[in-house]
Amino acid sequence: MQFNIPQDHPRAESLRVREMLVEGLRGGLVVEEGLIAHGRGETFDYLLGEKTTLSAIMAIKATAAMLLTSSHPIISVNGNFAALCGKEIIELSRACGALIEVNLFYHSVNRERAIKCYLERLGATDVLGTGKDRTATIPYLNGERKHVDPRGIAIADTVFVPLEDGDRTEALKKMGKKVIAVDLNPLSRTSVHATICIVDNVVRVIPILIQMLLELKSENRESLMNMIGKFDNIMNLNESARLIRRGGSEISATI
Amino acid sequence: MQFNIPQDHPRAESLRVREMLVEGLRGGLVVEEGLIAHGRGETFDYLLGEKTTLSAIMAIKATAAMLLTSSHPIISVNGNFAALCGKEIIELSRACGALIEVNLFYHSVNRERAIKCYLERLGATDVLGTGKDRTATIPYLNGERKHVDPRGIAIADTVFVPLEDGDRTEALKKMGKKVIAVDLNPLSRTSVHATICIVDNVVRVIPILIQMLLELKSENRESLMNMIGKFDNIMNLNESARLIRRGGSEISATI
Repeated sequence: MQFNIPQDHPRAESLRVREMLVEGLRGGLVVEEGLIAHGRGETFDYLLGEKTTLSAIMAIKATAAMLLTSSHPIISVNGNFAALCGKEIIELSRACGALIEVNLFYHSVNRERAIKCYLERLGATDVLGTGKDRTATIPYLNGERKHVDPRGIAIADTVFVPLEDGDRTEALKKMGKKVIAVDLNPLSRTSVHATICIVDNVVRVIPILIQMLLELKSENRESLMNMIGKFDNIMNLNESARLIRRGGSEISATI
Repeated sequence: MQFNIPQDHPRAESLRVREMLVEGLRGGLVVEEGLIAHGRGETFDYLLGEKTTLSAIMAIKATAAMLLTSSHPIISVNGNFAALCGKEIIELSRACGALIEVNLFYHSVNRERAIKCYLERLGATDVLGTGKDRTATIPYLNGERKHVDPRGIAIADTVFVPLEDGDRTEALKKMGKKVIAVDLNPLSRTSVHATICIVDNVVRVIPILIQMLLELKSENRESLMNMIGKFDNIMNLNESARLIRRGGSEISATI
């Protein structure tokens, strides 16, 4: 089924971005509820002006420093993240030496496999957290979400989890891990509980993060630790919330 | 594929509502992009406190009066509206004597048919705007959206169009029609260009509107026209926008 988005529709660009997720759904990567969650983020993005703010840049910089100083960083991938940033996930993994683990809120073996295959086709060599590899457990969680890979999230010191849900963020924090989230709602439980939350659209974040990792790679550990120390997640979130409120008052009639 | 939403998840209720649309997608009523659009509305609803505001009540009252004083009102139904309010659409149609017409942004013959059959199974007797019935045209529009039923939207004086897009709202207005929209974004093009926009979740709106129609049915025309005259759409939208900004500052960490 192919739809034609009218060229003169004022939100044609946003409608085209949606198609990436619709493709992901048809390819078995994305679950229907993931489309709704994406829409939810779209509104916050719209209120933020659909651009990467200075606050987001600061959070991305702290993220790069944290990934480079971690001994066992992991990139946790769900269906939406895979559909939106497939190739970039591999590049990110290479740029910071993090392993990739599939972890789904709405779990199914088929979807897990579809995401793994998709990432492998794009060049990933070792995708954790699928099939019989989910033998470790995150305490404090119910349901399928608690099963993780003993080589991955279970032993990671830092988990990069774009588009995460609040429960899991809290559970990972309780395990003593550093959690880096990407979430367009600056006051979601995920954002508030994360060690670093980047309030921005993940599609814009990852290329900037990769660039930042390459730039900071030559910095010494002390300098990187200083960058992390300077970052205050709650202050940063409050600044994003302020921008969203301002967006709400300057809202243009184009949604 | 059946997912279990953890009972203790703080947004379990919202997640369950999403399932109605997911069911609609599986039943061929809803299109994938409709799920994303729903998510977009979810954020505005969340900022509004997920309840019907006094402003919305005033807009619903004016809507009831407008429907009761129209000579040829039409209810324009898309996939999301059908999936969320199937039974209520029939009741609404009976309560105000409006015909029902299917009209889709992402058009397909199969979906049109699925929605018609679904509404007929729920008791609708005459669903317009499908198959060979779409021989009239809305000027000022491109693509499939311009085709309408000559017995319905084409000759209607009032079009009730929940979840409409901005282009079509403007085009219908240019044709001299009164347009009543339901839109959670108070400053979307749809909201601003509508004759009346109800800023609220359509799931909550329709039962209240039906109740209001029954209550106002015995009022005389002059009194109903007075109610419409007192309603100022732009002032009403500004009040909703103010509530959303306040919601943004009182945002609770539970999304």
